[in-house]
Amino acid sequence: MRKYRILTPGPTPLPEEVKAALFREPLYHRSQAFKNVVKEIQENFKKLLKTKRVPIILSSSGTGAMEASVVNFFKPGEDVLVVVGGKFGERFYKIAKKFNLSPIVYEIEWGDYPKPEKVEEFLKSNKNIKGVFMQICETSTGTFYPYKEIGEVCKKYDALLIADGITAAGVYDIDFDNSNIDILITGSQKALMTPPGLGIIIWNEKAHKRLGVNKNYKYYFDLEAEYKNQVEKYQTAYTPAVNLFLALNEALKLINKEGIENIEKEAKLMSKATLNAFREIGLKPLSKNPAIGVSAICLPEDIDGVKLVKFIRENFNMYIAGGQEHLKGKIFRLCHFGYIDKFDTLNQISAVELALKNLGYDFEVGKATQKALKVFAESERS
Amino acid sequence: MRKYRILTPGPTPLPEEVKAALFREPLYHRSQAFKNVVKEIQENFKKLLKTKRVPIILSSSGTGAMEASVVNFFKPGEDVLVVVGGKFGERFYKIAKKFNLSPIVYEIEWGDYPKPEKVEEFLKSNKNIKGVFMQICETSTGTFYPYKEIGEVCKKYDALLIADGITAAGVYDIDFDNSNIDILITGSQKALMTPPGLGIIIWNEKAHKRLGVNKNYKYYFDLEAEYKNQVEKYQTAYTPAVNLFLALNEALKLINKEGIENIEKEAKLMSKATLNAFREIGLKPLSKNPAIGVSAICLPEDIDGVKLVKFIRENFNMYIAGGQEHLKGKIFRLCHFGYIDKFDTLNQISAVELALKNLGYDFEVGKATQKALKVFAESERS
Repeated sequence: MRKYRILTPGPTPLPEEVKAALFREPLYHRSQAFKNVVKEIQENFKKLLKTKRVPIILSSSGTGAMEASVVNFFKPGEDVLVVVGGKFGERFYKIAKKFNLSPIVYEIEWGDYPKPEKVEEFLKSNKNIKGVFMQICETSTGTFYPYKEIGEVCKKYDALLIADGITAAGVYDIDFDNSNIDILITGSQKALMTPPGLGIIIWNEKAHKRLGVNKNYKYYFDLEAEYKNQVEKYQTAYTPAVNLFLALNEALKLINKEGIENIEKEAKLMSKATLNAFREIGLKPLSKNPAIGVSAICLPEDIDGVKLVKFIRENFNMYIAGGQEHLKGKIFRLCHFGYIDKFDTLNQISAVELALKNLGYDFEVGKATQKALKVFAESERS
Repeated sequence: MRKYRILTPGPTPLPEEVKAALFREPLYHRSQAFKNVVKEIQENFKKLLKTKRVPIILSSSGTGAMEASVVNFFKPGEDVLVVVGGKFGERFYKIAKKFNLSPIVYEIEWGDYPKPEKVEEFLKSNKNIKGVFMQICETSTGTFYPYKEIGEVCKKYDALLIADGITAAGVYDIDFDNSNIDILITGSQKALMTPPGLGIIIWNEKAHKRLGVNKNYKYYFDLEAEYKNQVEKYQTAYTPAVNLFLALNEALKLINKEGIENIEKEAKLMSKATLNAFREIGLKPLSKNPAIGVSAICLPEDIDGVKLVKFIRENFNMYIAGGQEHLKGKIFRLCHFGYIDKFDTLNQISAVELALKNLGYDFEVGKATQKALKVFAESERS
C-alpha cells in the first residue's frame, strides 16, 4: 500500500488525461482518425516551440532521434564537433563514431558547461566542421548549456547546431525559429509527460538542405521517408506506437493550456527551492550552471548515494535518480519537469532528509524542507 | 455511438488486462520492478516459442527489428538472398540495400510462395550467400511460406535463415529450437495483442556466432549492447517503452494460459470459415498457400476495394485492410490473429457482404456469413 511516486528525470508521472489516452483500442494507423492525431500533435508542437517547422515523431526512445540526427544530416568522414560533459554528450560521440563521422571532442568536466568562445576556437581552426552536437540540458549532471550563444557561433561558421533537448523541450521556453538551433531533439518521457517510446526531431530550413546528404546506412530512421509521410500525409513510414501518439497529443494540449512561460517559471522556482534547501544543510549542486529541470546535488564523502536512493525506494516507494558512471554514489538527482509540482518537490527534499539522517549525516532534520517552503512562500508573496 | 472495431492484420484489439497495464504510472526503467517485468517477458516468450534462447525487445516497430537483423549479423558487401513476394519481402530488400549488403532477389508473384528447391538452386550456385531473408507469413498477400523446409535447405548450405514472423509468432505454433529458423523477428501489435511500438528478435547459437560481424553503422539497434543488457541484467541499453513492456507481459500471460496450440487451431478454423464463406459467393483467396492469420480475398473486377473498405469504415466504424501497392483496390484482408474470435470473424464477413451489396455485386446476402457459421458449427460437433 505504499504510494508509488516516480520523481526521476524521466520517466515522469502521467496526468490522468494522458493515462486515459493509453487505455484504449489502438487506432488503425492508416485511418483518417489517426492522421487527425498526427496533425494535432504537429500543431501542438508548433505552438509549444513557436515554430513554423513540423516536428517528426519517431517510434523509438530519444536515442533513436539522436541517431536520426547523425545519419540523415551528415555523411561518413565528415568532421563534427561534439561537446562531451556527461553521459549524453558521450552518447552523441559514440553514435557519430559508429556511423563513421569524424567526431572532434570538446571535453569538459562533468558539471561544467561549454563556453561559446571555446567552440569558436574549434570552428575557427577547422573550417571543415559541419555540425556541433551538444545537449541543452546535460541530464547526467543537471547542467544547462548556453545554446543560444553557441548557436550564434555556429551560424557564423556555417556549422549546424544539433541540440539534444530531451530534458529541455517542454520545460525551457525554446523559441525554435529564433534559437539558432538547427536540429532539435526530444523524447516523450521527460517534460512531455508521456511514457517513454517516442523520439521527436525538428529541423530548420538550413538543416533541411543537408537532409539526405547521406544516402546509405539508414532505414528505420530515414527522415526523408518520415518527412514525406508525416508532413505531406500525416502518416508515418512504418507502424507507429499509436497509443503513445494519442497520449503525447493529450500531454501537449495540457502543456499549451498551461503555457510554456508559466511552466518554465515554475520549474525555475522548484529548482531554486531545491538548491537552496540543500545548501541550507551543507550540500552543494554539482553543476556550475544548474539546469532548471533537474538538480544534481553532491553528497558528503561518507554518504553512499546508492544507499540513499535505495533507502528512499525501499522505505517510501519513491524513485529519485542517483549518479551515472563515475558519479555513481556521489550525487543524487531530483526532477522538476513533467507532471511534478511544488508539493512533489517538498516530498523529494523530505525523503532525502530522512534518508540522510538514517545514513548518519549530521544535521537538523527538516531544515532543508523548511527552506524550500520559505522559497515557495516568498514567491507567493511576490 | 457506432461501436469501434479494429479487425485489421495489426494493430489488433487489446484485452482488458493489456489496456489496464497501459493505464498506469511508468515504472522507473532502472528499477528492480521493471527488471522483473523484463525477466517475466523473457520467460513467457521462451514458453511461447519453446526455446531456451532469450528474445530481445526493441522499442521500435517490427521494421526496427528487421533492420536489427540486417545490421548485426551481416556486413557490407556480403551476399544474401531475399525472397520478395509482397510488401514485406520488398522491405527486407530495401533495408539490405541501404546497409550495403549485396541482396540477390528470389522474386515470386504476389500471392505465391517460395519453393525450397528454388532456394536450393540459389544457394548451390552461389556459395557466398550468408543468409536467406523471408517472411513466415507475407501479410500483404496472406501467404504462408514453408519456413521449415526452406530452413532445412539453409542448414545444408550453412546460410542463416532470417524469418520475419511479425504476423506469425503468437498464431502459428513455432517450435523455435527445432524450426531451422536462425533469427526470428516479430512485433507487438499483431498476434501479441499489444499496441504497436515493440519489435522482438530472437536468434539461435549459430546466428550468435555472427553477432557483431558488422562493427559500424548501428547504434540504437546494436544487439550486442541489448543482449548484454537484457540477458545479463534484465535491462535495456536505452530507455524502453515501459508501458508497452507491461502490456506485452500481460498479453503473453494470456496467450500462454490459452496455449499456442489452441490459438493456432482456432485461427485455422477462422481462416477456413472465411475462405469458404467467400468462395460461397464467388470470391477466391489471392494466395496459393493461405496463411491462417490473415485472409486476402480477391474482388470482382468491377468492385473497387478502396470503396469497400471505406464503406465498412464509414458505416460500421469497423476497420478491415485493403490491398497494398499494385493490389490496392483489388483485394481486401481480414485478420484472424490477436484478440479476435469467431464472432468477430462473422462480423467481418457480414460487413463485407453488406458493402458488396451496396457496391452492386450481384449475390444473395447472408450466404457467406451462413457458410462461415456452418463451418463453426461443424467444428463444434467434431
